Amino acid sequence: MRRLRDLLRSAILRGTFPGGVLPTEAELMASYGATRATVRETLAVLRREGLIDRRPGVGTHVVVKAVMTQLVEAHGVEPPGQESLLNRRLRARELDRSMIPLPHLAADRLGVPAGVPCLRLEYVSLFGDEPHGMATNYVLNPEAGRMRDQPFVHDWYALLNEAGVGYEQSEFVCGCAPADAATAALLGIAEGSPLITIEQVISDASGRPFNLAYIHVRGDRFLFVSSAARRH
Amino acid sequence: MRRLRDLLRSAILRGTFPGGVLPTEAELMASYGATRATVRETLAVLRREGLIDRRPGVGTHVVVKAVMTQLVEAHGVEPPGQESLLNRRLRARELDRSMIPLPHLAADRLGVPAGVPCLRLEYVSLFGDEPHGMATNYVLNPEAGRMRDQPFVHDWYALLNEAGVGYEQSEFVCGCAPADAATAALLGIAEGSPLITIEQVISDASGRPFNLAYIHVRGDRFLFVSSAARRH
Repeated sequence: MRRLRDLLRSAILRGTFPGGVLPTEAELMASYGATRATVRETLAVLRREGLIDRRPGVGTHVVVKAVMTQLVEAHGVEPPGQESLLNRRLRARELDRSMIPLPHLAADRLGVPAGVPCLRLEYVSLFGDEPHGMATNYVLNPEAGRMRDQPFVHDWYALLNEAGVGYEQSEFVCGCAPADAATAALLGIAEGSPLITIEQVISDASGRPFNLAYIHVRGDRFLFVSSAARRH
Repeated sequence: MRRLRDLLRSAILRGTFPGGVLPTEAELMASYGATRATVRETLAVLRREGLIDRRPGVGTHVVVKAVMTQLVEAHGVEPPGQESLLNRRLRARELDRSMIPLPHLAADRLGVPAGVPCLRLEYVSLFGDEPHGMATNYVLNPEAGRMRDQPFVHDWYALLNEAGVGYEQSEFVCGCAPADAATAALLGIAEGSPLITIEQVISDASGRPFNLAYIHVRGDRFLFVSSAARRH
């Protein structure tokens, strides 16, 4: 079940089934040496995940396709490609933009005293009509001052650029966590759905961290691609 | 709640609370301008995630600490650091090792005909006594032949090295998914718990992909660190 699920899930998300039509139960049984019960259970899991739809007499259809982002582009330090999500294909819906005293734990992370003024900017990121993720950003001065009144239209890096905020380095700490009720409602998913968590720190040319972000991405269809080769 | 959860979660996983003791409810209310109800709800969510324990009269304690892995080391193309998980700190528990005809969808992904012989090697990866993740690998010949009888002790890259299998490139497609019942049982977590999913393709020096893996990692405490800087 697990093995078939992994293989089908990947092929569904990559959009490799012609016309979005999955093989029949009989074909899957033959191809994978699986029992009918296993095939049905696997398809049921994929349907519960919202990846496929099954209709009697019609068959099994793919209902989503993954959107892939190169991790290096997600870091914001490489120019986005033509097809990239970060090439103005996302839209931001602001939830909160306010100057606040920097909270203690955020201050620890940025290495500055708690209570210094910071811009808190919280938003949902949309791809088409679909929520892609949400993020809470804490930005220190002087960058906060430049960003405070800058319209936020596309993605975070476009906002930084438009506000004239330069940056050099980006660090991610990536994991996953179940969506809490409020986040789930904002993203249109069930409470407890798995989300990719990214804690990001962005630093300027002198290495000073000025931006801390807590990002939650729908990792069921927004995937990150990372490639590495040996150096010689 | 969401904001406080993000900040506390990060600090818990990073091990930044002295002695593993969280601030009191009153301190958290004062520091974050939160109501007692919000603080309690947040701590309840973190407890349900298995990150903290709360005892009346004793307070709130951290019960786990995250294990961080550099993503570039996870790719297997850089030598692991002294403290790295990939420096023989993981142990493999094999679930299956067999020569099978390569399944269709795996064949599509590797660009070879379905049915060619492949080594399927499935295992749980342990860090100390704690399951770190699990993976199903499909390996083509001639590499499969070299690995077929090689003892698997630590991590996948140690196995490749010990079997004399060279490789040059590694690609990850990362997302997340809820654990199915069988995977959850193997990893000692609840069904539906969020897992990081990594589809990996490893290629040789000629660029030929010879190894496909479906990896599931407990992303609630095994985190990946990725850093990027602008190139000039």
